[in-house]
Amino acid sequence: MPEQSSPLDLAEGDPFGPHNLPYGVFSTPDHPEDRRVGVRIGNHVLDAGAAAHALGSPYAQLLAQPDLTALLSAGRTAWRDVRRALTAWVTVPAHRADVEPLLHPIDTVTLHLPYAVADYVDFYASENHATNVGQIFRPNAEALTPNWKHLPIGYHGRSGTVVVSGTDVVRPSGQRKAPADAAPVFGPSVKLDIEAEVGFVVGVGSEQGRPVPLTDFRDHVFGLCLLNDWSARDIQAWEYVPLGPFLGKSFATSVSAWVTPLEALESARIAPPARDFPLLPYLEDADEDEAGGLDLRISVAINGHVVAEPPFATMYWTAAQMLAQMTVNGASLRTGDLYGSGTVSGAEPGQRGSLLELTWNGRDPLDLPDGKRTFLEDGDTVTMTAWAPGPDGTRVGLGEVTGRIVPAS
Amino acid sequence: MPEQSSPLDLAEGDPFGPHNLPYGVFSTPDHPEDRRVGVRIGNHVLDAGAAAHALGSPYAQLLAQPDLTALLSAGRTAWRDVRRALTAWVTVPAHRADVEPLLHPIDTVTLHLPYAVADYVDFYASENHATNVGQIFRPNAEALTPNWKHLPIGYHGRSGTVVVSGTDVVRPSGQRKAPADAAPVFGPSVKLDIEAEVGFVVGVGSEQGRPVPLTDFRDHVFGLCLLNDWSARDIQAWEYVPLGPFLGKSFATSVSAWVTPLEALESARIAPPARDFPLLPYLEDADEDEAGGLDLRISVAINGHVVAEPPFATMYWTAAQMLAQMTVNGASLRTGDLYGSGTVSGAEPGQRGSLLELTWNGRDPLDLPDGKRTFLEDGDTVTMTAWAPGPDGTRVGLGEVTGRIVPAS
Repeated sequence: MPEQSSPLDLAEGDPFGPHNLPYGVFSTPDHPEDRRVGVRIGNHVLDAGAAAHALGSPYAQLLAQPDLTALLSAGRTAWRDVRRALTAWVTVPAHRADVEPLLHPIDTVTLHLPYAVADYVDFYASENHATNVGQIFRPNAEALTPNWKHLPIGYHGRSGTVVVSGTDVVRPSGQRKAPADAAPVFGPSVKLDIEAEVGFVVGVGSEQGRPVPLTDFRDHVFGLCLLNDWSARDIQAWEYVPLGPFLGKSFATSVSAWVTPLEALESARIAPPARDFPLLPYLEDADEDEAGGLDLRISVAINGHVVAEPPFATMYWTAAQMLAQMTVNGASLRTGDLYGSGTVSGAEPGQRGSLLELTWNGRDPLDLPDGKRTFLEDGDTVTMTAWAPGPDGTRVGLGEVTGRIVPAS
Repeated sequence: MPEQSSPLDLAEGDPFGPHNLPYGVFSTPDHPEDRRVGVRIGNHVLDAGAAAHALGSPYAQLLAQPDLTALLSAGRTAWRDVRRALTAWVTVPAHRADVEPLLHPIDTVTLHLPYAVADYVDFYASENHATNVGQIFRPNAEALTPNWKHLPIGYHGRSGTVVVSGTDVVRPSGQRKAPADAAPVFGPSVKLDIEAEVGFVVGVGSEQGRPVPLTDFRDHVFGLCLLNDWSARDIQAWEYVPLGPFLGKSFATSVSAWVTPLEALESARIAPPARDFPLLPYLEDADEDEAGGLDLRISVAINGHVVAEPPFATMYWTAAQMLAQMTVNGASLRTGDLYGSGTVSGAEPGQRGSLLELTWNGRDPLDLPDGKRTFLEDGDTVTMTAWAPGPDGTRVGLGEVTGRIVPAS
């Protein structure tokens, strides 16, 4: 009889090893209403609240919860201490007998949106993306608006339609008007698109009227997720002047089920890019050890076929700058606030994070194994994955975000 | 000894008589943590949960709550039945002995934000306002963008900074850049403005992927409030291209403490205005008895001096059309969603709902008793009030929304 292998004995280099430990919320088929905080280890989910209880941990209260809210709001010291405890639970042999029965194979559980999204803001922080979009949508003007290199541009999105990875997305209907049309027409979007983004999850809130400085980024932001900001380009193009995107975006935004703590991404920190203009002091990060860029490698697939590999390292604005910008007017933060980076696009054509850019607004269709694509067709499944450099040559896997397009209702 | 008068014996024509009965949330100085649902009658607040309990009402569960969420989500039949019960409690002499001890003078209680704001959307539904803003901000282009008369334009705002009437507003800081400036400068806004709006409060949510037709407006929207969408025009002008307003708005939005149920405004319903272009079917309201305009008369005062009287009857788009627009792409509604009409401006100069318009971006200062005003100064208090025609020649008062500007932090 072969030796029984433990779910804790991971293959070398597993991107969800003990150096990662992202958080999520799961339920099991036996108790579908009982949502529990889970931590991913390999292809298993550890019932974190049950483990804390079994091991007599002081964090049982924080982890035996139906979502991540209590943990998110607990603050940086608690985040560090809980992570240390979890690392011990999944690595110290003496804990195995307690921990192993609390591991669920990931394909046997249901993963849920891990926290209530408070406010959702979407930024526009990739210079390549903003330049491409400017060239496509405003061909007779400068691609970047005059403000673009002075502040991270952003806008509020709809938090009530943020859904967890795996949720079907209904093709939205709305008004569109081609330049040649005499009047707008109504119908299902014919330019349904994706946007490959990274989402940042706020743990600790702030007081209204008090800006949060860039240097406090790690005191407020708990971690990150992958985010697909589904976009109906035809609806968006007709509606967005003068007040910005609305229905072209608000039908659905998908996030990965796993929130990767910033602490797992220490090895992925890189210098921010050189900036072309002097920054105002509240955005200046040249001397800030706490700020900086992140080396995340994203991959976007349609029906299993990789169509783009956007590098987050190319972003012009950092997540800490976005946080400073979002609050510099005194806007408060709340636990569960989510902000997206905006579409991540690298300089190369194969690094563009939207079909708008990949097909140049439909001019250059993609050749997929199942046919040509300009924009998404009903039945298409989009899956984004990502990894970041971890300690000692490892990789830190981010949870995937996937969604399938179903026909307009 | 003079006869004891009852708080229920209101002066004839009191705008907060039994024909009105708006809902709010209050606490008393003795129990500041004990938030309770209140109903305004004259200058008193009835402890609605306590009244329901004292009178053995089946609505005690719905009303003995710390906010309006349970009532909002209960739906139209419950809204009607609770309102009938409340009307009886404050009008039937046999109930006086039970009800009178549960009335608190309004100036002895603290009023709170009456529900958790889920998503906040701001529309732009006044033709006069949009035309004025277009002329001021884009003098070399058509004042109204080509889409304006085909759909109610809107965008998402920050729900976490919606505050109840009476909350101080800290002057926001941010980037601004005058055309003559070589680079943006940072500092407290020098063009801090108001926007007089009406806010609509969603009671019953909807399913993602399913548009809510215009005819279902009264099944979803519970009532309305007054709303001041504070705006920093200098921050807004620099940031808003291409993704719309963000920090110029997100520092604070004030709402009245009282939510007036739509049922109290039956006598204020009027025909919507004539439209200049054919409407797409999902916005067509010509034959809809359930849709239509509302005759609300707003008054805006700075430090007690009335500066504008915007008429809501002049709005091009109705609240039902805004709801249909907001959901036509399948975006779901949640209990507590709030959407603003956008600045209400009439055709006359004295009917404009923002200082941007009233002073034509500072060109024509207002002459107030305490000095000239282009935009708001520190220490200014802005108060908006409104009334609507009620039954039998009465007036239905809307709760005021007031706020004072305090210096930048």
